[in-house]
Amino acid sequence: MEFTVRAGKPEDCKDMSRMIMELSIYEKAPEQVKISHKELERDGFSANPFFQCLIAEVPEQHRSKEGHTKVGYALYFYTYSTWTGRTVFMEDLYVMEEFRGKGIGKALMSKVAAVGKEQQCVRLQLSVLDWNTPSLDFYLAKGAQDLTASEGWHFLRFDGEALDRLAKEAPKN
Amino acid sequence: MEFTVRAGKPEDCKDMSRMIMELSIYEKAPEQVKISHKELERDGFSANPFFQCLIAEVPEQHRSKEGHTKVGYALYFYTYSTWTGRTVFMEDLYVMEEFRGKGIGKALMSKVAAVGKEQQCVRLQLSVLDWNTPSLDFYLAKGAQDLTASEGWHFLRFDGEALDRLAKEAPKN
Repeated sequence: MEFTVRAGKPEDCKDMSRMIMELSIYEKAPEQVKISHKELERDGFSANPFFQCLIAEVPEQHRSKEGHTKVGYALYFYTYSTWTGRTVFMEDLYVMEEFRGKGIGKALMSKVAAVGKEQQCVRLQLSVLDWNTPSLDFYLAKGAQDLTASEGWHFLRFDGEALDRLAKEAPKN
Repeated sequence: MEFTVRAGKPEDCKDMSRMIMELSIYEKAPEQVKISHKELERDGFSANPFFQCLIAEVPEQHRSKEGHTKVGYALYFYTYSTWTGRTVFMEDLYVMEEFRGKGIGKALMSKVAAVGKEQQCVRLQLSVLDWNTPSLDFYLAKGAQDLTASEGWHFLRFDGEALDRLAKEAPKN
């Protein structure tokens, strides 16, 4: 199937917001989605954006049952390793169910890798839920290493009251 | 003990590089450190920096056995959750061994949380090796959740040839 992969624009945010919700349902956590296309526009398309994104699009004649032509996205940003330097982190990779198995996810991920390499990144990182074996198998087949399994890296988070408490105790100097 | 926590400057990069090596020895992976103070200067102090940092400093009279007054650092950057928005990610938190147990690590981390809150971040995230129980216990005691343990998030990485291969397969459009 014909498709294109291009950089996201502010006018893509409504479709991204729709697909973010679809992905969260797949990840069994739709109640955790708190942001809308407005926050995406503000955070992704201002002077110092918090993320970058790619959109996969199909021609009109291949539009989805509901009429969508924007059928996948990848959202990424740059992080840093004090051991090896610049890293590109792919936060989300999503393709609508009826468009899977056509190389669209692979094309989005490859483009993130290529953009990262242009920025002199030496790593592409991401995180996956352990029960999500289709995704895990997809990444491992493409050459990813599972660092949680091999080295024991765990993900930690402060949010809500724990984050407020920490911030309040910061030195003022 | 008296100490201050302040934003890092380009002239701190040599001390940061020294402490990054010390931390990598603690993490049993000194051979993985490939960058020097030059890359830190380029990547942290240019127009679009890849990271931010904080330095903990003690007065001259409390300097270390080897004569150092810069005795700890935190390195962080901003990431993004498509569910909740802006996140601050603390990549490294380090305090030299002879200065531990004096609240310096806590002060550095609290300051990262406070800076993140100023930037409207709703999460502070980090990753820890599972055998590093002193650090894990420290974070959990302060209110962090272990998302690998509770939700099953795994960390994946592409680097070296796997990354090159991906990037080469990217669509040209």
